[in-house]
Amino acid sequence: MKTLKIIKIGGNIIDDNEALHSFLKEFASIDGPKLLVHGGGKSATKLANQMKVEVKMIDGRRITDAETLDVITMVYAGKINKNIVAQLQASNCNAIGFSGADGNAIVSEKRPIKTIDYGFVGDVKKVNTNALEIILNNAIIPVFCAITHDGNGQLLNTNADTIASALAIDLSNIFNTELYYCFEKNGVLVDVNNNDSVIEHINSQTYQELKSNGIIYEGMLPKIDNCFHAITHNVNKVCIGKPEMLFNAKTKYTTITK
Amino acid sequence: MKTLKIIKIGGNIIDDNEALHSFLKEFASIDGPKLLVHGGGKSATKLANQMKVEVKMIDGRRITDAETLDVITMVYAGKINKNIVAQLQASNCNAIGFSGADGNAIVSEKRPIKTIDYGFVGDVKKVNTNALEIILNNAIIPVFCAITHDGNGQLLNTNADTIASALAIDLSNIFNTELYYCFEKNGVLVDVNNNDSVIEHINSQTYQELKSNGIIYEGMLPKIDNCFHAITHNVNKVCIGKPEMLFNAKTKYTTITK
Repeated sequence: MKTLKIIKIGGNIIDDNEALHSFLKEFASIDGPKLLVHGGGKSATKLANQMKVEVKMIDGRRITDAETLDVITMVYAGKINKNIVAQLQASNCNAIGFSGADGNAIVSEKRPIKTIDYGFVGDVKKVNTNALEIILNNAIIPVFCAITHDGNGQLLNTNADTIASALAIDLSNIFNTELYYCFEKNGVLVDVNNNDSVIEHINSQTYQELKSNGIIYEGMLPKIDNCFHAITHNVNKVCIGKPEMLFNAKTKYTTITK
Repeated sequence: MKTLKIIKIGGNIIDDNEALHSFLKEFASIDGPKLLVHGGGKSATKLANQMKVEVKMIDGRRITDAETLDVITMVYAGKINKNIVAQLQASNCNAIGFSGADGNAIVSEKRPIKTIDYGFVGDVKKVNTNALEIILNNAIIPVFCAITHDGNGQLLNTNADTIASALAIDLSNIFNTELYYCFEKNGVLVDVNNNDSVIEHINSQTYQELKSNGIIYEGMLPKIDNCFHAITHNVNKVCIGKPEMLFNAKTKYTTITK
């Protein structure tokens, strides 16, 4: 089986034109099958403000009402996704932009209302790999934004980290999948203020310790949970760090193992 | 060679949720290879107004500055394209949304400045059919918005009618292509106020007569020129009319012949 690299980039790269441009040039140069998943960054909030769409938060979490879903679809699937694809084409990387609706690639389910109604937020239910397989086997590079659909015509806002891990898990039937979460830090850090304090390896046992010691907490928890979910579901390699981990052998980063 | 139907829909359907929904259900039911090209409708102007992006016109023509290009990319490639794809998936039609940047499908050239600087407007230079061929041969349906790229990372606003004819012409190497321009009238009319006065056949000779009689004028001229360009460049069939021409054998419409 060939190796497929699935790379997720977040707001810190998306929001910085120069960083994005130089990342995409390097991404284009990666040999072999690859797939990019991008988050949203701050443009969606900026557009919502310009459009006077109210940002609704409950318990610190953003609610995706119909207007917000429109904003997200326009920014993620439109502006960000198409500009990334055009830039990749300029580096001779033949990319095609995807939402989960395209090729029916990711079907999700509107999050059930328990205590909070998150609105048009989707939890991944099923990945359909057939269109992706055809595309990847023809050396075309899928670029995913964080939008899925429910199969009944409704688009849904979906977490980009989850999209990346769901794709890595389901594409592991066809490829040796490797999952790279790129963010602004060098990896999981012992001291959040010291970018040199990278924990290079975390396994399920040390993860428990790091959680009980309070070293991994809050926002990092769902990220690392996603990583463990992937590594325990047939993904060959799961890494967290700066994008440099992909291009520079000297870069330190965190690798998650079972 | 198989027959490929290339269908272009415009603002009158895009702006009417119910009309769009029922068109997409019928489109999904068309047998064999097919490809949809959609225009923009009024949402882009609405968004520009909400964002306080000034609509710049010179000699009655809209100028696409950088902000306007963003608006168009968000609305056409984001909101409209993804909602169409999601609705097609709901009718078991496996669609993938495309701009000209995706799969490097349509490379265009920024319109040279003569008397008017149209801004980020692109004239089609080259269609690359390889990604489209792979997709169509796997029974996946491309859905194009009216955005192309210049191959150097720049997205460009491009006329949807031209995109449809360029695709029909270049895909004629692989398919028998048929081009259907759907709009709000039953076809080319002798009397613009009488929807029953359809001219069922126009050839290059009668076209000259219709122009000199003033029956075809203004906005219809580039539309019909596009049709003649297609029919004289290997497209097998070129028709103009209401979408019903595709689904109801009794519907009258205009067919362009050499």
